[in-house]
Amino acid sequence: MEKRLLKTEPLEGKFMLGAIEAGGTKFVCAVGDNLGNITEKIQIPTTVPNETMQQVIEFFKRFEIEAIGIGSFGPIDIDQESKTYGTITSTPKTAWRNYPIVEAMRNAFHVPVGFNTDVNAAALGEATFGAAKGLDSCLYITVGTGIGAGAVIQGKLLQGLSHPEMGHILLRRHPDDPYQGKCPYHHDCLEGLAAGPAIEDRWGEKGINLVERQEVWDLEGYYIAQALMQYILILSPKKIILGGGVMNQKQVFASIYKHLEGLISGYVTLPELSSYIVNPGLGDRAGIIGSLLLAEQALQDKTQRES
Amino acid sequence: MEKRLLKTEPLEGKFMLGAIEAGGTKFVCAVGDNLGNITEKIQIPTTVPNETMQQVIEFFKRFEIEAIGIGSFGPIDIDQESKTYGTITSTPKTAWRNYPIVEAMRNAFHVPVGFNTDVNAAALGEATFGAAKGLDSCLYITVGTGIGAGAVIQGKLLQGLSHPEMGHILLRRHPDDPYQGKCPYHHDCLEGLAAGPAIEDRWGEKGINLVERQEVWDLEGYYIAQALMQYILILSPKKIILGGGVMNQKQVFASIYKHLEGLISGYVTLPELSSYIVNPGLGDRAGIIGSLLLAEQALQDKTQRES
Repeated sequence: MEKRLLKTEPLEGKFMLGAIEAGGTKFVCAVGDNLGNITEKIQIPTTVPNETMQQVIEFFKRFEIEAIGIGSFGPIDIDQESKTYGTITSTPKTAWRNYPIVEAMRNAFHVPVGFNTDVNAAALGEATFGAAKGLDSCLYITVGTGIGAGAVIQGKLLQGLSHPEMGHILLRRHPDDPYQGKCPYHHDCLEGLAAGPAIEDRWGEKGINLVERQEVWDLEGYYIAQALMQYILILSPKKIILGGGVMNQKQVFASIYKHLEGLISGYVTLPELSSYIVNPGLGDRAGIIGSLLLAEQALQDKTQRES
Repeated sequence: MEKRLLKTEPLEGKFMLGAIEAGGTKFVCAVGDNLGNITEKIQIPTTVPNETMQQVIEFFKRFEIEAIGIGSFGPIDIDQESKTYGTITSTPKTAWRNYPIVEAMRNAFHVPVGFNTDVNAAALGEATFGAAKGLDSCLYITVGTGIGAGAVIQGKLLQGLSHPEMGHILLRRHPDDPYQGKCPYHHDCLEGLAAGPAIEDRWGEKGINLVERQEVWDLEGYYIAQALMQYILILSPKKIILGGGVMNQKQVFASIYKHLEGLISGYVTLPELSSYIVNPGLGDRAGIIGSLLLAEQALQDKTQRES
């Protein structure tokens, strides 16, 4: 019944690996090893595939990398038995729609290529070297220009029919919040109500200029707490890690703890919330370090297939 | 990072196993094998532990069972590293609170005992022999006197900090539904709005007497569809199986398909809903057959530890 998707023991020895954190505005490319060390890193603007990928490939050509890991913006096809495996699928960035990024890297380097979502990569990074180190389970959520989440569950990156799309779950509107929501698909889903652009749209200013407005962050915490309630009841993660630009507003955490306590209402037993729901241990490097680990996994999968 | 919780390959050979589906009103006990065959089955009323368990033990004493699997009502402690592993924890059935059911069976039979929630057991049964046979992922939901769900994700029973409590996720109230909800913890969570007792409470009659009232089942589908939307976005199961008494009202399925289509709004690609969201392939035997598989797993874990 089981397909093995994620290795559980580190490879023996140290390998030179490439990592790409493919985002909608920039590609972060790094060379490092399977112990989480990064030796070189660059950023390349996300324009059109030809242009961006040429620079990506030029960067990696300078190194003798043994495998590549890609943590990508989505939606993407991560089903290894699918014909379109390794492509970015229905993204609003039309130039990238159906772009076969895994094939492009395989053709350029002839090494194993690991592929998953940026947030699943970040969850893997955090579970291996970050805030969830030593745990077989964590949820990583980024709250920024969009909201996305990835998870390690029982030592594996969460995957089913496809990767999770947790940023779009339904919420109850706050009775005093007239804002209609910004998601083009669902209007007032989590992303539509609580991502950075929704904050700006609702309050008329970027979040960074609203730091002193307590009501902004209380409402933000109200919505994020609701989402966490659903994630906890469904996934029961051992650690919840909140990254992304919006989560640099530390006052959101107090609001999340307060609202979540009320919602859970003693129904499930959780660790002390301030140690359970935290910022990333790897800071903004969770995604790129996780992508190194995707490369390691691809390398190990190849070794297993050949043995 | 990984702890292995669920075996992936059947044991070689056939073993005589015991299974208990421990419910709040009755215990179903069965003897069968790891191929899903049941040779004897009885029902014992759930009264107090001394009384119920004595009958359970008498039943199994007649057989040479090699392992026992228990799929239990909850909440229960399934963390094998916990001091209270194998107990029913904070159940409203006070006589059973903190009852060490695993220890009781181990002491009586000196064989390996597998232990999980009734709904996780049912998910395992369905993934192995039922509607999700051959898939490494399914979600099993029971809608009856309560609402609970279990899942197999990447070949493993879903478990993190604890087992899921998916029946209590938050929903948006239907604007025309004034009913306040019946959950003692959260009032209008899924269980509070859509379990059998909520149907009876809202409409003044048991569901079985409301078969002709289209609005009853349309509203029921409205709430279940919302819950499925959240489960799909978070877990991305490969098959969704709806069991329990309420789901014998086949007209609920049409309502679920209609409302879910609207909620997903083309955002994620799903299989044809009528083959994706289905009744249990094992009917009402999913839980007890899943419990046989929990016994098989316990036996395999013991074999592995000894080898």
